[in-house]
Amino acid sequence: METKRTFGPAWRDASIVALAGGVGGSRLARGLRAAAPDARLTVVVNTGDDVTRHGLRIQPDIDTVLYAMSGIVNEKQGWGPRGDSFRCMQQLERLGGETWFRLGDLDLGIHLRRRELIDAGEPSSAITAELARHLGIAARILPMTDDPVETWVQLAEDGQWVHFQEYFVKRRTNVAIRGVRFEGIERARPAPGLLDAVASADMIAFCPSNPIVSLAPVLAVPGLRDALRDARKRGAVIGGISPLIGGATVKGPAARMLDELGHKPTAAGVAALYDDLLDVFQIDPLDRGLSGEIQARTVVADGLMRGRRGEARLARFLLRACLGAPEGAG
Amino acid sequence: METKRTFGPAWRDASIVALAGGVGGSRLARGLRAAAPDARLTVVVNTGDDVTRHGLRIQPDIDTVLYAMSGIVNEKQGWGPRGDSFRCMQQLERLGGETWFRLGDLDLGIHLRRRELIDAGEPSSAITAELARHLGIAARILPMTDDPVETWVQLAEDGQWVHFQEYFVKRRTNVAIRGVRFEGIERARPAPGLLDAVASADMIAFCPSNPIVSLAPVLAVPGLRDALRDARKRGAVIGGISPLIGGATVKGPAARMLDELGHKPTAAGVAALYDDLLDVFQIDPLDRGLSGEIQARTVVADGLMRGRRGEARLARFLLRACLGAPEGAG
Repeated sequence: METKRTFGPAWRDASIVALAGGVGGSRLARGLRAAAPDARLTVVVNTGDDVTRHGLRIQPDIDTVLYAMSGIVNEKQGWGPRGDSFRCMQQLERLGGETWFRLGDLDLGIHLRRRELIDAGEPSSAITAELARHLGIAARILPMTDDPVETWVQLAEDGQWVHFQEYFVKRRTNVAIRGVRFEGIERARPAPGLLDAVASADMIAFCPSNPIVSLAPVLAVPGLRDALRDARKRGAVIGGISPLIGGATVKGPAARMLDELGHKPTAAGVAALYDDLLDVFQIDPLDRGLSGEIQARTVVADGLMRGRRGEARLARFLLRACLGAPEGAG
Repeated sequence: METKRTFGPAWRDASIVALAGGVGGSRLARGLRAAAPDARLTVVVNTGDDVTRHGLRIQPDIDTVLYAMSGIVNEKQGWGPRGDSFRCMQQLERLGGETWFRLGDLDLGIHLRRRELIDAGEPSSAITAELARHLGIAARILPMTDDPVETWVQLAEDGQWVHFQEYFVKRRTNVAIRGVRFEGIERARPAPGLLDAVASADMIAFCPSNPIVSLAPVLAVPGLRDALRDARKRGAVIGGISPLIGGATVKGPAARMLDELGHKPTAAGVAALYDDLLDVFQIDPLDRGLSGEIQARTVVADGLMRGRRGEARLARFLLRACLGAPEGAG
């Protein structure tokens, strides 16, 4: 007779906080939601990628998380709504507008709604909650801060500082960088509820997001590192998933950026950036040899999230590594 | 042997100013462009219909003129780009946004571009010129003012004041009104070049636009009525086209609004609103009997503009009535 898998108190009543960037973060967050459907889940999202285009405040990582967790994301590319079109951009181009930051017709719906709510005086956290509610998302999605923070990178060739999106989208990361800064981070207050969520968390997940431009801004929000240390002191477990497998990034420029900025472009290089915070760090079997370089307890599991099952599997692995096996899971 | 129609000095070198609202105005303006291709043509457009939606500053009458004069307008409805779709609005609705003011995906291109240019500090007149240039329009399109003016109407049922677009679009004019006011008009300065264009005009056309909410705001711009009177004194001719035919409007609520506000809902009622300014007023054969009630010299011609030929025909009729026959036109 088959044992019915029921999830015991350790997972069901768990409070989980996930720190996330865009595509990788949204996928692990979705995996956590699937693996621990009854847990309280707060996804804290990087806002350093935010950019103003055509008068609209674009929050790419928040939108990626909203689209992914509501199931309307373009699964193939990992961001943007499925089946989007670009008729507005075509017209904008005809009218002399810059269109390197391409906003789809469906995607524009979220940007117009956000603009409307910003103009009504709503902070990003309330706007994100409102959008999540309309999209039927059963988790709290929280921007890291309601205050404006923007990531700028310094180009190696001429020392020029450009907005991250100009480097990432307009120049397609086809250029070396030598510096990163988070404009406004010193004055950024943690979003309402963020420190409380950390203070009551049983587990905090560092998603497989870019450590330089996705998780670093989140961790740079004043007060958050201290809150994470306090959480560990009272027994919360912090577990990370490596965004690098065999020295390469699944998606995005993380490996290259690590290298250009003088870090090792490996799972160990990523872990080093989180070293005083991590209890557990997942690495891929390919990176087994790196565990000696990693201060946290390493756990080995396939790091590629293939489809929804892959997300849930990796999330379940991390939950188990941090919180122990769920009741009945053997 | 057929006489070749060439247009003589009176038309070729003419300076023409057209005062316009949306659909009717854009069509006569297009007719004037076609009938007198070498004349200097300035189309002065109502901005009282302007409204802010989703953080975008919508200028419906200017856009209608831009779309019509560039030939990309939806000819059947008279406004909006041809072949537009509404995917953004569908998404916006899903996200809890209000969508009664429907912005098409193509149409959004112009609104994003305008927002971008407003944020860059450009005034409406410069933005409109930039858009017209990209659309290849061979005429100067000028908002009546760069300053914010908004038309509000008072509902008869409860005395409530609502933005014109709420009455016009959201309530589809299915409600009686008892007042109209142009918010901000006292402080509105004529757009740069407007008074100069009038001062050097040979002819000023009052397009067949709504006299209450399209041409009245234009005429209420401080200084314009005086400039029109001065222009007449030095020999410029002011000619109008009736927006009403047999007591009915070709498009829109003009007849109903005239009636509700205590004016005669006829061509004569319209002319009375312009009485001290008009030299010439076109009326439809159906309205021949009204000429005794009209102070201006009435000229009779079919007032329906059927297609582009109809626009050009009516414009040519007005040009002839105001400036005389073009050379060689017999």
